[in-house]
Amino acid sequence: MTNTALTGVIPPVCTPLTPSYEVDTGSLTRLVDHLVAGGVDALFLLGSTSEVAFLPDRHRKVVLDTVVGHVAGQVPVLAGVIDMTTPRVLDHVDTAVAAGVDAIVATAPFYARTHPAEIRAHFRAIAARAGRPLYAYDLPVSVHTKLGTDLVLDLAAEGVLAGVKDSSGDDGGLRAVILGRRERADIADFSVLTGSELTVDSALWMGASGVVPGLGNVDPHGYVRLVRAARAGDWAAARAEQERLFHLFELVTVGGTRMGGSSSALGAFKAALHLRGVIDHPTTAPPQIPLDEDETARVGKYLAAGGLI
Amino acid sequence: MTNTALTGVIPPVCTPLTPSYEVDTGSLTRLVDHLVAGGVDALFLLGSTSEVAFLPDRHRKVVLDTVVGHVAGQVPVLAGVIDMTTPRVLDHVDTAVAAGVDAIVATAPFYARTHPAEIRAHFRAIAARAGRPLYAYDLPVSVHTKLGTDLVLDLAAEGVLAGVKDSSGDDGGLRAVILGRRERADIADFSVLTGSELTVDSALWMGASGVVPGLGNVDPHGYVRLVRAARAGDWAAARAEQERLFHLFELVTVGGTRMGGSSSALGAFKAALHLRGVIDHPTTAPPQIPLDEDETARVGKYLAAGGLI
Amino acid sequence: MTNTALTGVIPPVCTPLTPSYEVDTGSLTRLVDHLVAGGVDALFLLGSTSEVAFLPDRHRKVVLDTVVGHVAGQVPVLAGVIDMTTPRVLDHVDTAVAAGVDAIVATAPFYARTHPAEIRAHFRAIAARAGRPLYAYDLPVSVHTKLGTDLVLDLAAEGVLAGVKDSSGDDGGLRAVILGRRERADIADFSVLTGSELTVDSALWMGASGVVPGLGNVDPHGYVRLVRAARAGDWAAARAEQERLFHLFELVTVGGTRMGGSSSALGAFKAALHLRGVIDHPTTAPPQIPLDEDETARVGKYLAAGGLI
Amino acid sequence: MTNTALTGVIPPVCTPLTPSYEVDTGSLTRLVDHLVAGGVDALFLLGSTSEVAFLPDRHRKVVLDTVVGHVAGQVPVLAGVIDMTTPRVLDHVDTAVAAGVDAIVATAPFYARTHPAEIRAHFRAIAARAGRPLYAYDLPVSVHTKLGTDLVLDLAAEGVLAGVKDSSGDDGGLRAVILGRRERADIADFSVLTGSELTVDSALWMGASGVVPGLGNVDPHGYVRLVRAARAGDWAAARAEQERLFHLFELVTVGGTRMGGSSSALGAFKAALHLRGVIDHPTTAPPQIPLDEDETARVGKYLAAGGLI
Repeated sequence: MTNTALTGVIPPVCTPLTPSYEVDTGSLTRLVDHLVAGGVDALFLLGSTSEVAFLPDRHRKVVLDTVVGHVAGQVPVLAGVIDMTTPRVLDHVDTAVAAGVDAIVATAPFYARTHPAEIRAHFRAIAARAGRPLYAYDLPVSVHTKLGTDLVLDLAAEGVLAGVKDSSGDDGGLRAVILGRRERADIADFSVLTGSELTVDSALWMGASGVVPGLGNVDPHGYVRLVRAARAGDWAAARAEQERLFHLFELVTVGGTRMGGSSSALGAFKAALHLRGVIDHPTTAPPQIPLDEDETARVGKYLAAGGLI
Repeated sequence: MTNTALTGVIPPVCTPLTPSYEVDTGSLTRLVDHLVAGGVDALFLLGSTSEVAFLPDRHRKVVLDTVVGHVAGQVPVLAGVIDMTTPRVLDHVDTAVAAGVDAIVATAPFYARTHPAEIRAHFRAIAARAGRPLYAYDLPVSVHTKLGTDLVLDLAAEGVLAGVKDSSGDDGGLRAVILGRRERADIADFSVLTGSELTVDSALWMGASGVVPGLGNVDPHGYVRLVRAARAGDWAAARAEQERLFHLFELVTVGGTRMGGSSSALGAFKAALHLRGVIDHPTTAPPQIPLDEDETARVGKYLAAGGLI
Repeated sequence: MTNTALTGVIPPVCTPLTPSYEVDTGSLTRLVDHLVAGGVDALFLLGSTSEVAFLPDRHRKVVLDTVVGHVAGQVPVLAGVIDMTTPRVLDHVDTAVAAGVDAIVATAPFYARTHPAEIRAHFRAIAARAGRPLYAYDLPVSVHTKLGTDLVLDLAAEGVLAGVKDSSGDDGGLRAVILGRRERADIADFSVLTGSELTVDSALWMGASGVVPGLGNVDPHGYVRLVRAARAGDWAAARAEQERLFHLFELVTVGGTRMGGSSSALGAFKAALHLRGVIDHPTTAPPQIPLDEDETARVGKYLAAGGLI
Repeated sequence: MTNTALTGVIPPVCTPLTPSYEVDTGSLTRLVDHLVAGGVDALFLLGSTSEVAFLPDRHRKVVLDTVVGHVAGQVPVLAGVIDMTTPRVLDHVDTAVAAGVDAIVATAPFYARTHPAEIRAHFRAIAARAGRPLYAYDLPVSVHTKLGTDLVLDLAAEGVLAGVKDSSGDDGGLRAVILGRRERADIADFSVLTGSELTVDSALWMGASGVVPGLGNVDPHGYVRLVRAARAGDWAAARAEQERLFHLFELVTVGGTRMGGSSSALGAFKAALHLRGVIDHPTTAPPQIPLDEDETARVGKYLAAGGLI
């Protein structure tokens, strides 16, 4: 992967698990085939949707080795290196590079209290170690820091960052990066990706390069149609597709208030993949609470309403 | 270590580093000797003050093996198993148990969005795996979750938790756990530890079992005198000692606004230990910003004012 | 004003002050003329941009009486009734109704800690008292509560709310209300207004009814062109206009870190109106910090770059 | 009231209401008599516990006039001037001064986004206008700003602030102000009051001047005994009293999750005063949700357990 801007649909790939919480590599490769067949432009392994926060290091390595080997260059593979601070992240970088991934995705430090100057140093150290494109992952709901526009653009101009995945939900901020990029000729190929499942048409309209949708596991074809319609200038079709996906996304609420948002959303994605026959088990990692029968049935209804089963 | 309540001064032990960011085991054992000679009641390895968020797994293991071997049973050794969720934490538990620690200290999950029911499941899984006392570490500033009084007391009654380290700064909540313990005969030996350096006398006055003070690295004798005075009923002496330590604690501010709170506080603790001749290097892990000469000189002034050099 | 959906550009009207902090009614009527001449569809008095939080009740009354009388029905006039809880808000409703405004705009309670059931009761009581359309003002940065999609849509279906002004910055939530409205025939004329200056084209694209832009004081013609282009289906022109306004909006940052965000943004709007010759004084209410000469000069540069002077 | 430090028990006086939500002045004077007979040192009108956020201006005036007239100098009367920003607060100051109160209590601005320099200007303007002692009210849960130690001590040294009511729950911060006061001879009579009902003994132990306990409405005698025991050096008695009051305070939770914290706590205080025969109606202002019969019965059980009925 060169520094040419990454564009299109890059789903954060779910990590199928066996009932005993091992990585289900058979299901994982089927999921990858499902995504590639759906027309996605790249794969993002070990993001939040991949339950990276729940995966021990040996599972992370299994995921990387399995997918990089299976994909065999059909599409670029990005790897999350999610951990608290630089030294721990660098170890994950080494593993990912050894596995042969094409690019790295990192958040700002978390758990430790950080300063913007420290966040800059953090990304610089990761880029230096990785020797391949680095994407910043802006996820304040988990990291409890919002990456500033200037920080992102400065690190782009320095050559540290090849792009940003903006999961902050702040579309004004997203636009600030997009317009900031336009003003600087030297970062024309900086990739601005939205992490929102719900405003992809408008993000593309503003000039975003692509999308990293968790729901893209369940319906990659939908997101691919959305992006292709936008590229073709058929914005009404893009919007119609987005609106269908908006309703489909409501499946993440089936767990209600008896579990955390992660259990409900990731549980629903996996239940949907299981119901669609892509993965063998809807298992999520502890301490997440599994969906019960009724909740799973409601996931099924969303799939039916979305024309997916 | 039996389930008898852990009491007294249990410093979270700093992790000395070499200039190339390896664990400086020589300095670490000297620091441990300094603390044991100071009269502390136990040692807490791999807490926030130990830069656990910055230590790769191999460094965590070096710390555990070095200290457990060196202490050789003189005082109990507690080990932090700080990571995002249950499966990753369980790996750290295995390492700590293999190293021979006496007890485990764990936070609620972080990065992932959790639910109280999931937090309970998390602590139950850790206790089951550890097979030795488990302490909950309540640190909302890092974990972004506050452990509820009922959650703590229920898990105490279940035998899951042997104690809590409360670093929330909420002394009303601390008292709620202390008074809740008093009402339940079955948890009389539940250990309630404050993580605040600044209100130890009042926490002990309310009935806290002990304290886990980061500043105890710099001045273990001070905290030991404080606790002993309180135990002897000489509360005026305890308060006078606390007030002296309150002023000493201001050294954590020397970094000002050019760095994060972690860089300034941990940098100051290490600079103080270096100035006192306990450790060889004041190095902190990246991406923390090192104190400069002027800031270090100001740490020295605090030490002089506190009668420590 | 009937219940027909309010649409288009509804600027939150700045409140010009004299150097002794009285309402400058001459400047206020000139500002209103400037906005009406700019083509706006309605006027929103006593919103956050109007410094409503800084205006004593007698000043609020002067603003209402002055503008309602001057506008004389050319466009609808909405009045904010911003205060902590229901009883205090109802007093403002009475004043606004007596002044003859066409509609009311209210936030959820603040300062007091509230519950969704209480927020619903709050809006019901206001609507009952007002006897004219009520708009919910969703401004979490000030109110520290986010209005849920269900709460908004339920109150719409009940006939309590005629619309919502969404200043939350959460465009996924904005879309949820827009799509929720589409599914319910009985609330087809519910007005969904974005409070963001920066994503108006995309909000309209999603189906928003209009925009309440603080920057619309400075450049009403720009926002009117934007909305008209969108209505005409010329989305490229709408986007180009939005992008110009995006850059113009950067004038809100001229105050930097020596003052609060309110001082800087409202100070910049008023400085711009003063530089454009619309109002006599750039005065903002205490304790806001006035812009200095240099900061004012930078506002002028933004105006020049935007073709406004 | 001179600048001599205000000390002891200063309850924030509940505002009894009739079923039609008018101020019940008969109940109010009985409540004041109950408090004065209980031995309190001063009265704080129009604080959060007084439902100040729910009281229209005319009700605030009724409260001030009623109590100042009735108390007739037996104890000092402090008045809250709670509103969003300086100009609105100054109007409340004028009303309070005209009513003849002895001192003023003000928060930092809220709703508007402020800067420390603006907060300082805010307090300076209030003190200049009031011409009598001004107390800062630090209540981050409502105001969403924490007053810094330096800000408080600097304004004390300037003569702007006569004291602080710290309801932040941060006992380390409380101690910082107490110790900072000790180091500056010129502010020896600065009054440091805790707003916590739960840690009064320890706050006094640290050197606090007194307490402003909402629960003091229900049981003034208890808080007076606590403070007198502490003054007499009988700290064990002070603690025992505090622990009894700690359990009594649990009555604020009777409303559970079906209402907001304000409804539950203020509802329980008023229900307790009603059950004790002090006030005629337990009515709270809208949109607060009234306690039902069962919840009220549980308040009664807390009173019985506390020996108050």
